[in-house]
Amino acid sequence: MTVQSGVKQSQTLLADELRARLRGKAKPVGSLGRLEDLAVQIGLIGGSTSPDLGIAKILVFAGDHGITAEGVTAYPSVVTREIAKFVLAGTAGVNVLARAAGVGVELVDAGMLEPLPPHDLLLDRRIASGTKNARREPAMSIEECAAALEAGRAIDAHLGAENVGIVGYGEIGIGNTSAAGLVAHALTGLGLKSLVGPGAGTPALGLDHKYQVLSDTIDRAAIAPSTSEKRTFEVLRQFGGFEIVMMAGAMTAAAAAGRVIVVDGFISTAGAIAAEALVPGTIDNCVFAHCSAEPGHAALLKHLSVKPLLELEMRLGEGSGAALAIPIIRAAELMLREMADLPGEHPE
Amino acid sequence: MTVQSGVKQSQTLLADELRARLRGKAKPVGSLGRLEDLAVQIGLIGGSTSPDLGIAKILVFAGDHGITAEGVTAYPSVVTREIAKFVLAGTAGVNVLARAAGVGVELVDAGMLEPLPPHDLLLDRRIASGTKNARREPAMSIEECAAALEAGRAIDAHLGAENVGIVGYGEIGIGNTSAAGLVAHALTGLGLKSLVGPGAGTPALGLDHKYQVLSDTIDRAAIAPSTSEKRTFEVLRQFGGFEIVMMAGAMTAAAAAGRVIVVDGFISTAGAIAAEALVPGTIDNCVFAHCSAEPGHAALLKHLSVKPLLELEMRLGEGSGAALAIPIIRAAELMLREMADLPGEHPE
Repeated sequence: MTVQSGVKQSQTLLADELRARLRGKAKPVGSLGRLEDLAVQIGLIGGSTSPDLGIAKILVFAGDHGITAEGVTAYPSVVTREIAKFVLAGTAGVNVLARAAGVGVELVDAGMLEPLPPHDLLLDRRIASGTKNARREPAMSIEECAAALEAGRAIDAHLGAENVGIVGYGEIGIGNTSAAGLVAHALTGLGLKSLVGPGAGTPALGLDHKYQVLSDTIDRAAIAPSTSEKRTFEVLRQFGGFEIVMMAGAMTAAAAAGRVIVVDGFISTAGAIAAEALVPGTIDNCVFAHCSAEPGHAALLKHLSVKPLLELEMRLGEGSGAALAIPIIRAAELMLREMADLPGEHPE
Repeated sequence: MTVQSGVKQSQTLLADELRARLRGKAKPVGSLGRLEDLAVQIGLIGGSTSPDLGIAKILVFAGDHGITAEGVTAYPSVVTREIAKFVLAGTAGVNVLARAAGVGVELVDAGMLEPLPPHDLLLDRRIASGTKNARREPAMSIEECAAALEAGRAIDAHLGAENVGIVGYGEIGIGNTSAAGLVAHALTGLGLKSLVGPGAGTPALGLDHKYQVLSDTIDRAAIAPSTSEKRTFEVLRQFGGFEIVMMAGAMTAAAAAGRVIVVDGFISTAGAIAAEALVPGTIDNCVFAHCSAEPGHAALLKHLSVKPLLELEMRLGEGSGAALAIPIIRAAELMLREMADLPGEHPE
């Protein structure tokens, strides 16, 4: 038996134990619906029929995008910084929603145009002052892309010491629906048109213009076929934002460390798709928080054959959907750990 | 101007102010989707653009049902007591889900077959040792029905002193999907068949049998047309469970006191429909937590033209859906209170 198949077999055994445990809880069989499926998933992630996921945290990755020069956004890049300041002040949407859930928020500067002053909740992991304009040239150099992935993995390494077992991945970055759409298109093969939406607001030049710019960007990059991992790296380098690449790196490390990855909206899902392409299996640790009103998000969720926990027609980003989903994940965890077990055997 | 139209006008003004406040928050207009509609609703309930809803609590109303003698349930009535004990021990589904949300749970004995020993979390409001068999005779006397409504209103009166502004209404009671189906059918005119489902489990004699018993019960009661309030009372008396009637009474008082009513599943929604029939306007204070997998629930929600916050295919009852929805309601409250406002005017 190979190591791989041994791991698989023990996961299958644990899944069976988890399902038996849930059947034996003090409730009609199956009556907690999708919460039971979620409990099985987090039990597998935690490696236990009684998982203890520790603390939850939301990381908001921030970056700026050279492609905004092409008129693909309604807002200028300076708005990234304004929202980042609200996050540090605790008054952005994600902070308020996270506070309602009892969850802390930290901001990761992955590469905004200008640095922010030091702050307790700010992780300075700046790769550069924004990406290059991907319509004209690769968004980042090979070294920058590798550094962003590595910085993401390093951020995750700290979470273990803090006993963080549930991590929400949010983002801010004017222009990042363009970057996410390009990355997702290149990695999933979904039609580019289905991945182009208004983001924070429809650009003055319209969505057709945004589509044309992104289409030109795909043509300009002309990414050659290659092995999956090499090609994924090239896709991230050509199209990515620093926040998306760093998030993808962090997600791969989180999965390896057995953390629950709470995926937020369109951009966070593009990050998860990139993480899965880099390290297959990462997606097993992903819980999809909600379906954003950004139209490309539904397309990505359908492509992944996943049903998110919430559908509240939100499209703010920042990790706001993840914040609302974390109490539901916690409920599934506590169901396994604290809900009464009925005596006896509980065969299928 | 009448008092009524004056109240209506001030509510319209407040709704406009709430929408303006939300447009001026630090986010793209409308980007928090249904959370913004929820914020408007709770702002109207709290009477403020910056509402403070205080503490949240879940009340679990428990009662037993004489109609179980007709073979309409998979479980015997003693199971009501077993689940009630888990609720007091803090290990029932609702406790665990409420704990994940940081919400306290109390059990109201509205009329279980036998009393439970005293407990800190138990409110003894027993009207009788279960209802009569509604297939054969009215479920309760006029005096019992009036006492159950009054006990519900009195329970609510205590919540104000505890600063409870968000109340989830759960229930336990073997047989109560039958009672709820009868009440809902009689008050909404929806086809009885659409309101008959398995509840905690399909009875051994099948759902057709359950339908036939309920249909016979409707015929037996032969409720005459009357004024709405009188007829509602007669419907509750003929078909209700003590937990449903007490819950309805509590909801009418909660609405009058300006509390947010978190409606759980099928039975709780039947209670809300009864409350609205007793005191029109009660439903304006109702937030519908989730759509249960019990098939009649979707029919009731459609009848009310409401979209619940969650759809997780749960069908446990107890207030479990309400527990998951409360953090979302809290998020909407904090959005109004704590999220950054952008400077300037924010016309539509």
